[in-house]
Amino acid sequence: MCEANAFLRIPGKEDELFLEMVDRVVPRDDGLLLEDIFGKRKIIRAKIVELALVDHKIILEKEPQ
Amino acid sequence: MCEANAFLRIPGKEDELFLEMVDRVVPRDDGLLLEDIFGKRKIIRAKIVELALVDHKIILEKEPQ
Repeated sequence: MCEANAFLRIPGKEDELFLEMVDRVVPRDDGLLLEDIFGKRKIIRAKIVELALVDHKIILEKEPQ
Repeated sequence: MCEANAFLRIPGKEDELFLEMVDRVVPRDDGLLLEDIFGKRKIIRAKIVELALVDHKIILEKEPQ
């Protein structure tokens, strides 16, 4: 399976795991919708700063409120 | 390998293949940088409209010039 893990990048800290085994990511007006392979969903006001698919990584950064 | 294929979504048409076997995607000021597993790079003024990783798909939409 080619899901990835989504991490939050926080400047000066280690990347923080936000959601594992992410299948779908859809930017919406209310934020970024992430859905894992089991259908569990999380929405976060963030932007994608990097995808590294071979490493199974999605790196996000929170948007200013 | 868990690379994906990047497609351009053009309203009213079929998605158009833009780059195969994409490993990395990095949004930059000058556009979206895509790099395939061989290191070949393409930049496009587009936004991500959907990731479907289990289907190995990255869907992009061109930004207005």
